[in-house]
Amino acid sequence: MAPGVLSPEKTHTTNAVSTSLKENSGSKSQGTQEHDLVLKTFRLLISDLCQQFNGGHPGGAIGMAAIGIALWKYVMRYAPLQPEFFNRDRFVLSNGHTCLFQYTFLHLAGYRDMTMDQLKSYHSKRWDSICPGHPEIEIEGIEVTTGPLGQGVANAVGLAMATKNLAATYNRPGFDVVSNHTWCMIGDACLQEGVALEAISFAGHLKLNNLTIIYDNNQITCDGSVDLTNTENVNAKMMACGWDVIDVEDGCYDVDAIVAALEKARASADKPTFINVRTIIGLDSSVAGQAEAHGAAFGADDVKRMKRSYGFNEDEYFVVRDEVRRFFSDLPSRGEQIVSQWNDLVGKYSDAHPLLAEEFQRRRSGKLPSDWKNLVPSPDNLSDKPLATRASSGLMINPLAKDINSFMVGTADLSPSVHMAWDGKQDFQHPDLRTTCGINGSYAGRYIHYGVREHAMCAVSNGMAAFAPGTLIPITSSFFMFYLYAAPAVRMGALQRLKVIHAATHDTIGMGEDGPTHQPIELAALFRAMPNLLYIRPADSEETAGAWIAAIEVQDASSIISTSRHKVPQLKQTRRDGVAKGAYVIQEDDDAQLTLIGVGAELSHVLEAAVVLRETKGIRSRVVSFPCQRLFEGQSLDYKRDTLRRHRNIPAVVVEPYAPNGWESLPGPEAYKYFGFDVDSIVLKVSDYLMRISYDEFLKREFLDL
Amino acid sequence: MAPGVLSPEKTHTTNAVSTSLKENSGSKSQGTQEHDLVLKTFRLLISDLCQQFNGGHPGGAIGMAAIGIALWKYVMRYAPLQPEFFNRDRFVLSNGHTCLFQYTFLHLAGYRDMTMDQLKSYHSKRWDSICPGHPEIEIEGIEVTTGPLGQGVANAVGLAMATKNLAATYNRPGFDVVSNHTWCMIGDACLQEGVALEAISFAGHLKLNNLTIIYDNNQITCDGSVDLTNTENVNAKMMACGWDVIDVEDGCYDVDAIVAALEKARASADKPTFINVRTIIGLDSSVAGQAEAHGAAFGADDVKRMKRSYGFNEDEYFVVRDEVRRFFSDLPSRGEQIVSQWNDLVGKYSDAHPLLAEEFQRRRSGKLPSDWKNLVPSPDNLSDKPLATRASSGLMINPLAKDINSFMVGTADLSPSVHMAWDGKQDFQHPDLRTTCGINGSYAGRYIHYGVREHAMCAVSNGMAAFAPGTLIPITSSFFMFYLYAAPAVRMGALQRLKVIHAATHDTIGMGEDGPTHQPIELAALFRAMPNLLYIRPADSEETAGAWIAAIEVQDASSIISTSRHKVPQLKQTRRDGVAKGAYVIQEDDDAQLTLIGVGAELSHVLEAAVVLRETKGIRSRVVSFPCQRLFEGQSLDYKRDTLRRHRNIPAVVVEPYAPNGWESLPGPEAYKYFGFDVDSIVLKVSDYLMRISYDEFLKREFLDL
Repeated sequence: MAPGVLSPEKTHTTNAVSTSLKENSGSKSQGTQEHDLVLKTFRLLISDLCQQFNGGHPGGAIGMAAIGIALWKYVMRYAPLQPEFFNRDRFVLSNGHTCLFQYTFLHLAGYRDMTMDQLKSYHSKRWDSICPGHPEIEIEGIEVTTGPLGQGVANAVGLAMATKNLAATYNRPGFDVVSNHTWCMIGDACLQEGVALEAISFAGHLKLNNLTIIYDNNQITCDGSVDLTNTENVNAKMMACGWDVIDVEDGCYDVDAIVAALEKARASADKPTFINVRTIIGLDSSVAGQAEAHGAAFGADDVKRMKRSYGFNEDEYFVVRDEVRRFFSDLPSRGEQIVSQWNDLVGKYSDAHPLLAEEFQRRRSGKLPSDWKNLVPSPDNLSDKPLATRASSGLMINPLAKDINSFMVGTADLSPSVHMAWDGKQDFQHPDLRTTCGINGSYAGRYIHYGVREHAMCAVSNGMAAFAPGTLIPITSSFFMFYLYAAPAVRMGALQRLKVIHAATHDTIGMGEDGPTHQPIELAALFRAMPNLLYIRPADSEETAGAWIAAIEVQDASSIISTSRHKVPQLKQTRRDGVAKGAYVIQEDDDAQLTLIGVGAELSHVLEAAVVLRETKGIRSRVVSFPCQRLFEGQSLDYKRDTLRRHRNIPAVVVEPYAPNGWESLPGPEAYKYFGFDVDSIVLKVSDYLMRISYDEFLKREFLDL
Repeated sequence: MAPGVLSPEKTHTTNAVSTSLKENSGSKSQGTQEHDLVLKTFRLLISDLCQQFNGGHPGGAIGMAAIGIALWKYVMRYAPLQPEFFNRDRFVLSNGHTCLFQYTFLHLAGYRDMTMDQLKSYHSKRWDSICPGHPEIEIEGIEVTTGPLGQGVANAVGLAMATKNLAATYNRPGFDVVSNHTWCMIGDACLQEGVALEAISFAGHLKLNNLTIIYDNNQITCDGSVDLTNTENVNAKMMACGWDVIDVEDGCYDVDAIVAALEKARASADKPTFINVRTIIGLDSSVAGQAEAHGAAFGADDVKRMKRSYGFNEDEYFVVRDEVRRFFSDLPSRGEQIVSQWNDLVGKYSDAHPLLAEEFQRRRSGKLPSDWKNLVPSPDNLSDKPLATRASSGLMINPLAKDINSFMVGTADLSPSVHMAWDGKQDFQHPDLRTTCGINGSYAGRYIHYGVREHAMCAVSNGMAAFAPGTLIPITSSFFMFYLYAAPAVRMGALQRLKVIHAATHDTIGMGEDGPTHQPIELAALFRAMPNLLYIRPADSEETAGAWIAAIEVQDASSIISTSRHKVPQLKQTRRDGVAKGAYVIQEDDDAQLTLIGVGAELSHVLEAAVVLRETKGIRSRVVSFPCQRLFEGQSLDYKRDTLRRHRNIPAVVVEPYAPNGWESLPGPEAYKYFGFDVDSIVLKVSDYLMRISYDEFLKREFLDL
């Protein structure tokens, strides 16, 4: 049997499906005839939308049509006219290439921005399109930009955790002001990606009963049948991970069965739910059930054939009949009703719990308490004793995290090393774990033990941040090296401009005895090149204060605060407001022959080298601290020139041990010496460099034409 | 109950263990008394090795002591005096921080390099130490550098696949010349990492019965009890993934039970085996069973107390009594016997199957057929029609992969897009899948459907490459963006200088309609900064030939060949031998005012811009193609200067759309225009830049002191 053809025991033919359809007549939902028309309309619409520009992903969306009806028409609680309604159910399309599925249901459900004209912009060259190849958070009704596969599952876990935390914090008897459910649609591929597997295991542990995964089980990926690569027992695996599992055999037509499964999932007592829905990719096209249905239009002839077989006019395109419009027409007003009921509830809640309601209101508006900066230790309160900047990180964020309940602070199993735990912290855990495992936690807790799951940690944090802008501010922590595991999630957070702060310790080569496998010498290059991300390397406690303030104040970016494992001296010249500018002069000299630029843990080496250069070689230099390139980019040209002194035309030397020399295994101080980033080596290199510049100038003048 | 204390149902106290010890007397192995002394000796040795410099990871190694005896003394087939013996069992320590476990057993088993003096170099500042904080491939008896958690599991899957493929290719009735087993030791953390979960699912699918995972189930990680983060049913999960599961209740003492489990695993008919061994971290120390035993020495007093309780002299250190030496003394000679038996077998095999044996010999020596380059299409045989460089990649590697069985070519579910499948390719699959799922494959197949598991794909490939240098050359393929998922594995391959070639398609902004979530604009910065990695962006078919030749010829590095989704013109000036130098002049002009540098898919834009600049602005330029920075670094200073013309002091402009401008969603050509990398934009920018340079020079002369 060729790839792309389902194995016999997994085949669900259209015939078999039709039979079961009849048995379902007379069910609770609006009946099969109406659904039949909606399903056909939807499938033809998808076919037309892909056919118009001869591209796109029709197959998955078509297979999932009945799931869409169940979700948008019957189960999900949302308000098309108020897409940002706080207590709405969240829907995540982790198999984001099927974006037409979501766009089309948003359109049918009455979201205002998603017009038919916009739907038709899918795969067009239009600048104003809101229908890109994967759903994006900026669009009404879309909760997260999922993009690369697997991310969405972890985002959904984060969204569900946000609900749990806010509910545990603000709900009171009779006032369930936060009660939404998170629905996550996935395909076969998501179940293969590591980030999803990490998140699934974690969600099962947390017993997130407000989370449902809907598995579009069509057994097809790009390469063909899933049997090519995955023959595990998915249901058994999910159950082993602590999930309830519900099977839906006829996912192509049986809206009622899907609705029943979804409602059962919403009512789950203490587990997340996995609904395994069998569907057929590209149903009723000539490539139904085959990989060819995945990522290419069906061809004009085949779409015409589908229309004829459905009883539609083969020469009409993008047809949505009045009956279909009527079918969805109640959704906007139903949404308004849901919002208004919630507003009433919150109104009464404000009377019953005025202080709590006030805080809830502030949180919803995305604000921190106005005096939050006072919680960051002032310069006067910083010790002048040497301290690892990872410890300084703790000094800055611990008091904020302790007193301000917007912060959700987590670690990928490195609590003893990353200094993110504050005195009296309570863990974010299902309260039952207290009795079964003796763990001190509840959903109101805000310290998250993610386990050794760096990638899920960051993707889950994106989900928490996406719940509502600024309502929760997730902080992750691990060794800098391990952020390479999490890099795809850090990237997606930045791409969505989500405020997530990553506390990365053990940066550069001074990261201790773990050896070269843990030396993150190439990671700064990646994160400095990543848009919408502040990569900040502070030099001492004062700059670490500046780093945290900058990361909290920025409204449209994620941040990495990159700190040292080893102790560094407290420098008198550093300033937190200098960090805010990205780079600043910490030692000026009007007669300088060069500018020395220092970063993070090595800034003190540079300051010392400046002294030695002057005393032993007579070379005068000025020193610039350069904690964040992205923040510096945003400064005025004048400021940048003044800082770097480019108009004086003196050379600049940057000292940072991130160059790709190779990996060697040494403890911190020895590594600095070995790689030539201690004071002596810097002095030697800089004076040699100045000599070579003069020699080059000499050569240029004398032998210009050689 | 505080973190770090095991929950009651998981507790395995020393008392309970002692009881079961008695029941085990009279078993097949050499008896409990002897084992008891070895176990005590080993545990004290580990304690001493950590105590000497007051650091390191003692707890895990101590808990795993009995597993080590079972492996090195009874079960594994290897030769301490010939560590590179081809058919040896492979052992992978995925929980690499417990490296002392492996170092110490290598020492006891008689590996020559691992002297007691070397053991004592653990955590020292010695330059000559072969005992870094995680095991490294360069050391005798160590198969892969595992480093960050989870990698080792996937490496082990790759090692087992290598065995399967070589066995299917070379074994003949009566001649099992490749028959080794792969043993992978893991801790609780490995089971949480996504890369391991991907690899576990894949190994179950492949039915790798020559692979065994030994799970050091001590239920402790850095943060405390595993219950904090993971409460899944691990055994059930592994079974759902297609693994056999064997429990060992008393892993601290019961060597016999462990041996029995390991032997059963080796005899498994058609599944990989997961052995769940309950142990106690830091057994018999005062922090036994607690997180504190994980990553810190126990303290001098506690080590003394342990020695007293074991009946050892508390003032003696690093004690290995003669009885213990004798216990391990047979291993070197046993190893020699194993090697000699295998050599005899291969000798007879050469008689029976001379041609096959000759090829087997060549493969083992790491060589390709001497005329392999003839299989790469010559310049004369390349079409002059525009072609996407991803398609050119296929043109170059398909004939090689088809005819030379060293190549193991895989994709993370993107066969239709990456052009790596050749006509008549056979899949690497368990042969049973042919009957159950209709898949055309066997273990002799060399095309690997990895599923949507990019990270595992690359880590598994590292394992295949590590099996024996050059015997298998793994090739991975996916969109460039998804290599961010795999980056930690790409990095580990490079760090180990393994020859793995990654075919990354859809690079830069011209990657099609998937939208900004798939634009890999920041990844080149990462991979160019990564040591021992060639990141090569070829410009057309000719350069793509050069890229593959360079990647295959390099002996001590991994490579990424980064290609375009869209068609690019065939340039007359490109040369494959130019690619080998990293950069080369493709258009010279002695009177050039500037050097234009082009890379990959945009090189043609640069050549066109050069023409337009000359014709419309009178600006003369020379053009350099720059496919690989790392290869260029290796050239002579003269060559580098000649290529870049730095001695002429003319400015250079690099054109590559990898700058961090932000993400926008557009199809290829529109994206190039939008971001300003089409010819018109380049011309405008370059002429503007030249004007600004002149103005700056003017300012400098006139206002030097301003």
